[in-house]
Amino acid sequence: MDVLGLLYLDELSHGLANLSMFPYFDMAHYVVSVMALREQPGALEVSRVSPLACWFSSMLYCFGGAVLSGVMLAEPPVAPLTNSTSVLLASIIWYLVFYCPMDLVYCCAAVLPLRLVLSGMKEVTRTWKVLGGVTQAHSKYKDSLLVMIAIGWARGAGGGLISNFEQLVRGVWKPETNELLKMSYPTKITLIGAVLFALQQSHYLPFQKHHLMLIYTVFIVVNKSRMMLTGSSTSPFATIESAIYKTLFTGSSPYAALTDEVKKPCIDNGTTNKTSSPARTKESSENRAAGTHTPVSPVRGPNEAKEESENSINCKKTD
Amino acid sequence: MDVLGLLYLDELSHGLANLSMFPYFDMAHYVVSVMALREQPGALEVSRVSPLACWFSSMLYCFGGAVLSGVMLAEPPVAPLTNSTSVLLASIIWYLVFYCPMDLVYCCAAVLPLRLVLSGMKEVTRTWKVLGGVTQAHSKYKDSLLVMIAIGWARGAGGGLISNFEQLVRGVWKPETNELLKMSYPTKITLIGAVLFALQQSHYLPFQKHHLMLIYTVFIVVNKSRMMLTGSSTSPFATIESAIYKTLFTGSSPYAALTDEVKKPCIDNGTTNKTSSPARTKESSENRAAGTHTPVSPVRGPNEAKEESENSINCKKTD
Amino acid sequence: MDVLGLLYLDELSHGLANLSMFPYFDMAHYVVSVMALREQPGALEVSRVSPLACWFSSMLYCFGGAVLSGVMLAEPPVAPLTNSTSVLLASIIWYLVFYCPMDLVYCCAAVLPLRLVLSGMKEVTRTWKVLGGVTQAHSKYKDSLLVMIAIGWARGAGGGLISNFEQLVRGVWKPETNELLKMSYPTKITLIGAVLFALQQSHYLPFQKHHLMLIYTVFIVVNKSRMMLTGSSTSPFATIESAIYKTLFTGSSPYAALTDEVKKPCIDNGTTNKTSSPARTKESSENRAAGTHTPVSPVRGPNEAKEESENSINCKKTD
Repeated sequence: MDVLGLLYLDELSHGLANLSMFPYFDMAHYVVSVMALREQPGALEVSRVSPLACWFSSMLYCFGGAVLSGVMLAEPPVAPLTNSTSVLLASIIWYLVFYCPMDLVYCCAAVLPLRLVLSGMKEVTRTWKVLGGVTQAHSKYKDSLLVMIAIGWARGAGGGLISNFEQLVRGVWKPETNELLKMSYPTKITLIGAVLFALQQSHYLPFQKHHLMLIYTVFIVVNKSRMMLTGSSTSPFATIESAIYKTLFTGSSPYAALTDEVKKPCIDNGTTNKTSSPARTKESSENRAAGTHTPVSPVRGPNEAKEESENSINCKKTD
Repeated sequence: MDVLGLLYLDELSHGLANLSMFPYFDMAHYVVSVMALREQPGALEVSRVSPLACWFSSMLYCFGGAVLSGVMLAEPPVAPLTNSTSVLLASIIWYLVFYCPMDLVYCCAAVLPLRLVLSGMKEVTRTWKVLGGVTQAHSKYKDSLLVMIAIGWARGAGGGLISNFEQLVRGVWKPETNELLKMSYPTKITLIGAVLFALQQSHYLPFQKHHLMLIYTVFIVVNKSRMMLTGSSTSPFATIESAIYKTLFTGSSPYAALTDEVKKPCIDNGTTNKTSSPARTKESSENRAAGTHTPVSPVRGPNEAKEESENSINCKKTD
Repeated sequence: MDVLGLLYLDELSHGLANLSMFPYFDMAHYVVSVMALREQPGALEVSRVSPLACWFSSMLYCFGGAVLSGVMLAEPPVAPLTNSTSVLLASIIWYLVFYCPMDLVYCCAAVLPLRLVLSGMKEVTRTWKVLGGVTQAHSKYKDSLLVMIAIGWARGAGGGLISNFEQLVRGVWKPETNELLKMSYPTKITLIGAVLFALQQSHYLPFQKHHLMLIYTVFIVVNKSRMMLTGSSTSPFATIESAIYKTLFTGSSPYAALTDEVKKPCIDNGTTNKTSSPARTKESSENRAAGTHTPVSPVRGPNEAKEESENSINCKKTD
């Protein structure tokens, strides 16, 4: 019985590994991405004022990962355009979501059950994208784990990582926030996936590729659905994060580091003194701007805190 | 008689196709580009405060297209620097336009008749640049129409498309506006040219290359001169644009899309609701910032409207 | 005696030329760079809010030159990540400088004598980086002096040249200032080095490479130490700069160029007139923003003036 179960799982993972993303899963990815763009503040206005900018923005949402990883590997950023079928498909979906008479397509796709299915399918494509990035990096830089992780991450979460420049296309500029400063859930989960697949690729993990694909895919799909259904935004890594954060990154408390009394002994060329006070003012202004907060409560990492407060946005932003 | 006329035109087009841009037409391009930079607000001040930044900015005006298309094809952006003669020529012109004693050069070149001739010659180089971009893309990506169009457009209108970053060199940052959000006339005409030459390159157009070159060149030169002489800014595509805009991009009116009453039925996970109100506020702020306006009059597309109000700037900006 | 001295110098230069930067000099470079980042306003706050952004920012400080020259030559910007040892080393130093308990590492490294030694060693790496860039460019573009200079400069002063985007990672955006608008001392000295090594590479200089390396290294180390010890910030090129500036870049005084009376004769299509007045207002606003000033005193170039007022910042910023 147990053996049968394992056999079944093995077959299942093989089946999943041979699953083709085109066209259905890709379409789901395009639909969810374009809807996420449409739900950005001001996006609808841009779609009326300049359809071209709106189209370009949508393409960055759909193919941002390919563009970013292309740039990082010095491959032509226009490469995604060569796949006419995908671009055509994405463009049709972009048109239907933004300009369909009566807003039919958007309204239908926004119905929870359908949106749930589409988001689930989109998450599946994440596995393929991350794996694709890792493999591509592996073929170029045999033994560099870091590059594999970077490219896998870029390929899987590109849309989020280049959001600053995607917003610039729409005339929006929010320098005070980016995915590195406050990672959204999708970016986090993609980073973890990139690490796992990179380790597997370098045979540091006692897994076979298709098994890892099954486990990772199931995890992200289930987790995504849970978050959409419960509307809860407690990242599954909250506790781990805060633990790591407290262990590693609180060596010298910001207060100690920022108070002149403590700093005095370090000041020799007087430069530190000069900057320390602007530093404090800068912070406070930054806090107001980016809505971050100094980790006063020692219990939870700031990322986690932000995660909670912004997950609803993030879900949309980089879904 | 008619036959003779055709023969003459054919000879003419052959002659044009064999015309060399170097040195006279290139020089005209450099002069007009550097003058356009000099007429940007704050440019003169920068030329006094930091000649290096001013020179770099001028080079971006002169070679922006080559740099942008290079980046898009993953070719070295420094490549234009390898053509020492062109760079030297452009640098001399930059120096004369900005620092010539008594401002002689600028004053002479700014005299309407001369400026008219120079602008006409500059427009001629546009044909060569667009065609060069299309051919370069064709040699790399045989059958990808989109890439040909993108590269041709980038090569021909690069200076305008990277204007945000060119301004950054001079310490100016205007995120609320870019060439995709509100296309200037030169950018539009270049895009059309890129489409035409890409279609011709893929044999979708029943034209021979040199004939298309003649037609396109004559059109842009004549149109440019008309706009400079009459000072009028009515784009020749105004009517077509508004027609296309009304047909394609008003499926769901912005008002319908932005009013909660209509949106309500779509709201399931409540996310749309959250963003819809910031959306409206964002717009209004964006409108104030970018000086755009929601297309209230159903008769004309917003691009066209902006075109009119800003053509005097645009002409200078990306000429 | 004199001959012996020369022989000794020759041996010394050979010894220097064969000096390996790894690990000690590289370490010094990483330590000084990460400390410079830590002394940026708001950096400490970022290090608490998002260690990842802080790490990425530090890597840009340490490997910015390699990344920038990579981009300029269309080589993968991720290439620096392939050198695991260097990245690991830099990451450890980043961790110790930012998160070491009791802030021990930073306090020790900030003690003047130690900091002096580290900065000296860091300056030595500059020679190797500039030379590396020039050689790399030479291997790709045999006879292009400009490219050699550009790449050498980018490799040696990359951290400073991309500072706008490095700040963006930390959520800071200061468009009104960049290294081209107001060059810091390190950027200047690197540019001069790039020019010298490029000339030597193309055999325009009657020097042997190792001799030039010795001269340049000694100069930058001595000069850097002097500036740190005396706290003085008078650039050694102040006089030359102002001389060049006065000779070349004051042909048409900004006042003449900006006053309408003088401009009138140039105005034909009325465009100049339109921009001239915004130009003036723009300036004044820019001046307030970037803290620059119109070169009222004809005696000294504005760069030099800025240099003095900001050297303390600059030293830290791009050290």
